[in-house]
Amino acid sequence: MIDKKHLDYLTSIVGEENIKSDKAHLIAFCYDATRSRFEPDAVVFPRHEQDVSDILKYCNEHKIVIVPRGAGSGFTGGALPANGGIILSLERHMNKLLEIDMENMVGVVQPGLINMQFQKAVEEVGLFYPPDPASEEYSSLGGNVSENAGGMRAAKYGITKDYVMALRAVLPNGDIIVAGKKTIKDVAGYNTAGILIASEGTLAVITEITLKLIPKPKFKKTYMGVFPSVDSAMTAVFKSLAAGANPVAMEFLDALVIKALKQKFPHISLPENAGGILVGDVDASSEDEINSQLETLKNSFAQNGSIDFIVASDEEESKKLWFARRNASPATMIYGTKKLNEDISVPRSKLPIALEGIYKIGEKYGFNVPCFGHAGDGNIHVNVMVKDKTNEKEMEDGHKAIEEIFQYVVDLGGTLSGEHGIGLSKAPFMNIAFTEAEMNLFRSIKKAFDPNNILNPFKMGL
Amino acid sequence: MIDKKHLDYLTSIVGEENIKSDKAHLIAFCYDATRSRFEPDAVVFPRHEQDVSDILKYCNEHKIVIVPRGAGSGFTGGALPANGGIILSLERHMNKLLEIDMENMVGVVQPGLINMQFQKAVEEVGLFYPPDPASEEYSSLGGNVSENAGGMRAAKYGITKDYVMALRAVLPNGDIIVAGKKTIKDVAGYNTAGILIASEGTLAVITEITLKLIPKPKFKKTYMGVFPSVDSAMTAVFKSLAAGANPVAMEFLDALVIKALKQKFPHISLPENAGGILVGDVDASSEDEINSQLETLKNSFAQNGSIDFIVASDEEESKKLWFARRNASPATMIYGTKKLNEDISVPRSKLPIALEGIYKIGEKYGFNVPCFGHAGDGNIHVNVMVKDKTNEKEMEDGHKAIEEIFQYVVDLGGTLSGEHGIGLSKAPFMNIAFTEAEMNLFRSIKKAFDPNNILNPFKMGL
Repeated sequence: MIDKKHLDYLTSIVGEENIKSDKAHLIAFCYDATRSRFEPDAVVFPRHEQDVSDILKYCNEHKIVIVPRGAGSGFTGGALPANGGIILSLERHMNKLLEIDMENMVGVVQPGLINMQFQKAVEEVGLFYPPDPASEEYSSLGGNVSENAGGMRAAKYGITKDYVMALRAVLPNGDIIVAGKKTIKDVAGYNTAGILIASEGTLAVITEITLKLIPKPKFKKTYMGVFPSVDSAMTAVFKSLAAGANPVAMEFLDALVIKALKQKFPHISLPENAGGILVGDVDASSEDEINSQLETLKNSFAQNGSIDFIVASDEEESKKLWFARRNASPATMIYGTKKLNEDISVPRSKLPIALEGIYKIGEKYGFNVPCFGHAGDGNIHVNVMVKDKTNEKEMEDGHKAIEEIFQYVVDLGGTLSGEHGIGLSKAPFMNIAFTEAEMNLFRSIKKAFDPNNILNPFKMGL
Repeated sequence: MIDKKHLDYLTSIVGEENIKSDKAHLIAFCYDATRSRFEPDAVVFPRHEQDVSDILKYCNEHKIVIVPRGAGSGFTGGALPANGGIILSLERHMNKLLEIDMENMVGVVQPGLINMQFQKAVEEVGLFYPPDPASEEYSSLGGNVSENAGGMRAAKYGITKDYVMALRAVLPNGDIIVAGKKTIKDVAGYNTAGILIASEGTLAVITEITLKLIPKPKFKKTYMGVFPSVDSAMTAVFKSLAAGANPVAMEFLDALVIKALKQKFPHISLPENAGGILVGDVDASSEDEINSQLETLKNSFAQNGSIDFIVASDEEESKKLWFARRNASPATMIYGTKKLNEDISVPRSKLPIALEGIYKIGEKYGFNVPCFGHAGDGNIHVNVMVKDKTNEKEMEDGHKAIEEIFQYVVDLGGTLSGEHGIGLSKAPFMNIAFTEAEMNLFRSIKKAFDPNNILNPFKMGL
């Protein structure tokens, strides 16, 4: 519970209409895309950067916990008040598109702006913002930066960090800093923007984001490669990319996902004998280039045992090819009542052995583990399917399987998370991925920014 | 002077042949590409990461200053022992190419490896490492990472930070950390690699670097655009890029540089009426694409007043076009006995007004200020030419002009340094670019990594 005098002071900063502590608001801001629920003590809606600074300064002086929150669509509890505190919601006021600078191909936004609104605005003027997390329709750019969001186009275009040119941010002590510029190059001072990206709201509150844009590619086509097995599909991923293929996306569906899709969507047309599928777009500035890219893909897939290569002839066929990938996640629910899903990432050449080992761990505990995801960048969504979530033993086994999968993936040179972050959900596994020396360094960095530990504490295992 | 007992202990770590404190060695390691000279107390050549760890642990306990050094080719004194200490030289032993991983398109190197040796090795197997600082023949990759080196290809391919996937490093307390992986995506833990890049050896000693590689482009052609004025050339830079041109390089020569080149190299064939020149390569995977790119450039240059557009028909002609750019720096010496050269960077749309203002500041003090550089990424090498370097008043005026240029550039949204770093040379100007709050944050970050301030102190104005 927060002291009334603190609420009164915060009210004097933002006005009564911008601070809430009634039950309805506390419930409305207690969730994210995990199933966890943590009620805050209050929710405050800063109107602008100065409000953020005033709020943080006061809370830092009085050691009141602040949890920054964008759209609340995170998968790992990053925006949840794990142990009380005030939610600082950027979605109500600080959600504006401030500028599209055509001459420098740069966009400037506030953190609460929704990713897709930004994508649409820049595409209207012929520019392109590639990072497209699956949550693009409702996740905020501030959240995207704080988690370093990926997406479908990462294979060719990289991830959020590759587009952040500059940040404005407020430190826990209320200081406002600028990190980076609208310049391609800038080597003056430490790269503080670099460390704020993916810091999950634990170091500073981001108040403005300057994003690199690129010219919108003129032509796009959708392909699907059909393989007899997961192993051949996974091998084709890294072999085709090393052979010079450069698709926007190379998404993967395994045999269990294909089976689930057929069962759940009987009208779906998926190849009978598919043991693994790779699907994605290629894009380019000319049709010739598109065709040359498709040729490279087709040949390289064939060399790695593909049994079919389909190219969509129009938008409708493209949608049909994408339907399977877009519905992979709900389809997997045929295998259980509870999905323990992780987003591991490995060096691409390790994909075949990674999948093989993951299935073995699943078998050991008796779980189906359907896998799909962004194979083109080595990032796979692994789903341990619990048949009966009310069965405690089965749930416990599920968590054991997840832990074994993490250990296995890290041993292969992989990581706990490709794009969802650590937050609360993966915090218990940080010791698998990091040594005590590395964790100590993280704690020192946290302390350098936030000596009183008021900003989003209890996250990332710190 | 360093205590003999410390030298003895360090000798017990690395062996007598790997630690030197005789005058010849102290002089050999007292310089870099600045004209400054600072003698160290000793030079130590670690054989491997464990040596680095043992040395740092001991020096941290005894508060002995350590200055990491690659090839000593820096332009801002980053590898100089500003106030004594031990040079930790990575060039003798820790200079190996450890791995070219073809399947993941990744190279793993030790910090002392020379940039060009790495470029050649990866090109031999059909891969490509784009960052090519002008020092590529002799600068080390560890130095490139520590300064976040740019180069000629940054307009299309970005800079060193865009290629660093992972680092191994030793913290001042001797702890060995791994930051990053061979994965495209990794959002677990803070992005410590991000902050080590461009940290100028002040936070940790980098012991291993994992670098992203890309397929080697198959076709390349050199172009030159000739403009009547600096203003029209600078306008063509951002207009052509915003129109979709995507050259590898778009290098700039101003009227003073062109005049100097003609005087210094009478045989050079440069257009008579050129007031500004843009020169560079385009590359692509097909000749069609090259031609389409050249067409875009040519049209866009013409729309912005170009008077000629030349395309090299073969390698020899390409070398001729590049000759002017490659010899720009020495040619400027016709204007004086001392060159005060800076590498400012601005948002590209500000290039015309930036150059206009820089010339005005030069005029005010009576200096010729020939400018050239990487216009395609907004990074210009500005040269305030002092006629008589023995004239104290003129030298003082030169430094005043530089300070005014920095202030002007920062006011335009630009930075003190696009690729050379801050080191000692630009430390006095940090207060132009950063607020007290930002400098305090830098100091906190420094302290988080290096609480005893033993690692490369007195740099970056900290």
